[in-house]
Amino acid sequence: MGVPSRVGDDTQRQLWRAAVRLFAARGFRGTGIRELADAAGLSSATLYHYMGTKEDLLFSIMQTCLDRLLTAAERVVADGAPAELVISRLVHVHVLSHALHRDETTVVDNEIGALAPDRRASMVQTRDRYEDFWRRAIAEGCEQGVFSVPDQRFARMGLLEMCSGVAKWYSPHGPADLDTIDAAHARLALQLLGMPPHRAASAPLPDATDIHRLVEEIWQVRLPSVRAREPRPAG
Amino acid sequence: MGVPSRVGDDTQRQLWRAAVRLFAARGFRGTGIRELADAAGLSSATLYHYMGTKEDLLFSIMQTCLDRLLTAAERVVADGAPAELVISRLVHVHVLSHALHRDETTVVDNEIGALAPDRRASMVQTRDRYEDFWRRAIAEGCEQGVFSVPDQRFARMGLLEMCSGVAKWYSPHGPADLDTIDAAHARLALQLLGMPPHRAASAPLPDATDIHRLVEEIWQVRLPSVRAREPRPAG
Repeated sequence: MGVPSRVGDDTQRQLWRAAVRLFAARGFRGTGIRELADAAGLSSATLYHYMGTKEDLLFSIMQTCLDRLLTAAERVVADGAPAELVISRLVHVHVLSHALHRDETTVVDNEIGALAPDRRASMVQTRDRYEDFWRRAIAEGCEQGVFSVPDQRFARMGLLEMCSGVAKWYSPHGPADLDTIDAAHARLALQLLGMPPHRAASAPLPDATDIHRLVEEIWQVRLPSVRAREPRPAG
Repeated sequence: MGVPSRVGDDTQRQLWRAAVRLFAARGFRGTGIRELADAAGLSSATLYHYMGTKEDLLFSIMQTCLDRLLTAAERVVADGAPAELVISRLVHVHVLSHALHRDETTVVDNEIGALAPDRRASMVQTRDRYEDFWRRAIAEGCEQGVFSVPDQRFARMGLLEMCSGVAKWYSPHGPADLDTIDAAHARLALQLLGMPPHRAASAPLPDATDIHRLVEEIWQVRLPSVRAREPRPAG
């Protein structure tokens, strides 16, 4: 089966959206085939044609989500920037993509246990490859004395949880815009890694336009904060 | 209906354990009544006698979990300790209880949407009361200049996510014991809140024995690390 990021098929996009919404709201096991077909506006027979089994669809959703994160991480470390800037970029991408894809985050976080063992192993492997970018940046910063943590593994897992958590409360109608949320989380991340507040507050932030373009390209979205900023004069 | 923390009824304990395990593994909606009855070793009729509806049981599980956290938080702030020690105690209790109750954490985190609106509102209110203890300690530390964060709300939510995340990976058979995990997370929390590493590392840690006793009393468990430490000579 194809995935919406690769095939420009409206039916598949529709099915993807319906599945993500239902799996997030009712759980993978709590979502019936009939319900999925209804939500996607398809007959059960057409549904199977598009998705294979329900587990094929879940696997495809998870794989696409994790592949996107992995691609984004590869791109933001490519220029060999210093550890504190790499962390700041990783935080920006992770927070932005999670805030904008609340349901996908819920599905990836909650349903890995619903996959068959070989597929679960493949997902864990992709997630480990993604986390490796964080691991390397934390290790590099610690070696250089920029970061200081009691345990690098706990620090990495704590950071990832903190950043993923944004998906639980972010709303485009809430009081804080994405740029503010991103910048605050980057500073909190650097503090967690042992940078004192004055240094974390003055650490170089990634170019917000570059990050937004990257997220828009990989996740195929238009970011509200980019649209809101366009009419403003430069400066 | 009663809850296992209040009634010493073996059948209800058995039902509670089966429900927590199944709701965590298969989701609330993915768990059938038949399956629940089988796992608890009951007939469907007896099951209803003990649990009311399936949603009654879910609500009771969530309420008990959140009430326990709330009680623990009330106890650790009762002596008016300074903000950094309060945060450290809250981290210890949160991390310990989440590490030891992985399935409960999954159910509380994932299934709040499965409750009817009035019950959901009641759960959100209890969770807010718990989070208020964190909110007040962070605000106090910021006022006193001990903490420094770009946004107190983001810092609080990030901290809670970091500490809850331990439930996702902790294993009693893993390389790190609970005391090490607790102490490391307390230090990471203080760093996240803006304490430089040398100050976070030398900040007073809560008395581990007091925290263990509190968790053992409220969650009605025996902590492995307490057992392991008993034979050691003092010092």
